[in-house]
Amino acid sequence: MTKPSHFPTPEDAENAFYEAVAKGDVDALMLTWAEDEEVVCIHPTGVRLADHALIRESWRNIFASSRLHVRAELVAHWQGMLLAIHHLTETLFLGDSPEPQGTLHVTQVFSRGAHGWRLVNRHASPIGDGHEEPAESTAHTLH
Amino acid sequence: MTKPSHFPTPEDAENAFYEAVAKGDVDALMLTWAEDEEVVCIHPTGVRLADHALIRESWRNIFASSRLHVRAELVAHWQGMLLAIHHLTETLFLGDSPEPQGTLHVTQVFSRGAHGWRLVNRHASPIGDGHEEPAESTAHTLH
Repeated sequence: MTKPSHFPTPEDAENAFYEAVAKGDVDALMLTWAEDEEVVCIHPTGVRLADHALIRESWRNIFASSRLHVRAELVAHWQGMLLAIHHLTETLFLGDSPEPQGTLHVTQVFSRGAHGWRLVNRHASPIGDGHEEPAESTAHTLH
Repeated sequence: MTKPSHFPTPEDAENAFYEAVAKGDVDALMLTWAEDEEVVCIHPTGVRLADHALIRESWRNIFASSRLHVRAELVAHWQGMLLAIHHLTETLFLGDSPEPQGTLHVTQVFSRGAHGWRLVNRHASPIGDGHEEPAESTAHTLH
C-alpha cells in the first residue's frame, strides 16, 4: 500500500488529483480523497457516489474505458482555515485527440485533516448552452 | 430597500433561501447571497452566473415563468469557522402539482461575513439515471 500523501495546500491536493487522472492511476487518485470524513462525488452523468469504495470503483471504470486528460481552469475560490472550495471549468480530452470532448462546471471542496488537505466533495456537471454571460448583461449597472 | 438580514447560521440562510423561492421573492432571495464576495450560481441548465446582478436577473426570470416549490433534503455537510458546504437533493414542484417535476444534486457554499452567513456558491445539476448506489455495491468490502 502506498502511504497517505500529505498535501500542504488545497492546490497540492488538486494538482495531485489531476496528475492521477492524466496517469489513469486510481490509487494515486484516491489518496487525494479524505478517508476519515464524508465524501461525495457527482459525475457529469448525474450519478452521485457517497462512499470511498464506490468512488474508487467509478474512477477505475473511467480509467479502464478511456485515457483522459483534463485541462482545469480555476474560476473562483473560497478559502477558510479548514475548508477550501474551488470552482473550475474543466475541458476534457480523450486519448491523443487535440479536440475537446466536453466541458464541465466543477465544484471541489477540500478539507484540512491529519494528512493535510484532501478532497471531500467533487460536483461535476456539463456546461450548457449560453454558459457565457449574456451580452445584454446587467453587470454594467453594478458599482 | 430592505435592510440586509443577519443569518446566525448557514441553516438560517438556507431556510431563508428556500422560503424566498417558495414566495417567488427575488429581493428576499438575493439577501441570502453574499454581496462582498465572489458569487457563483450554476443552474441545472448548465448556465453559470458569476455576478450578483446576473444571478438576480436569472431568478427573476424563473419566478416570472413558474411558481416553484422545492423540497430540499440534506445529504452531507462540511462545517468550518468561515465556510460551510451543504450537499442536498432537491425535488422540484411546479404550481399546485403534487407530481415532482425533477430532482437535482445541489452543492451550496455559505460564507460567514459581516452580515452573518450568506450563500457564495450554488451548483445545481440534474440527477441522472442510476443515481442510486448500484446493487452490486462494493461498500460491503469496507470496514
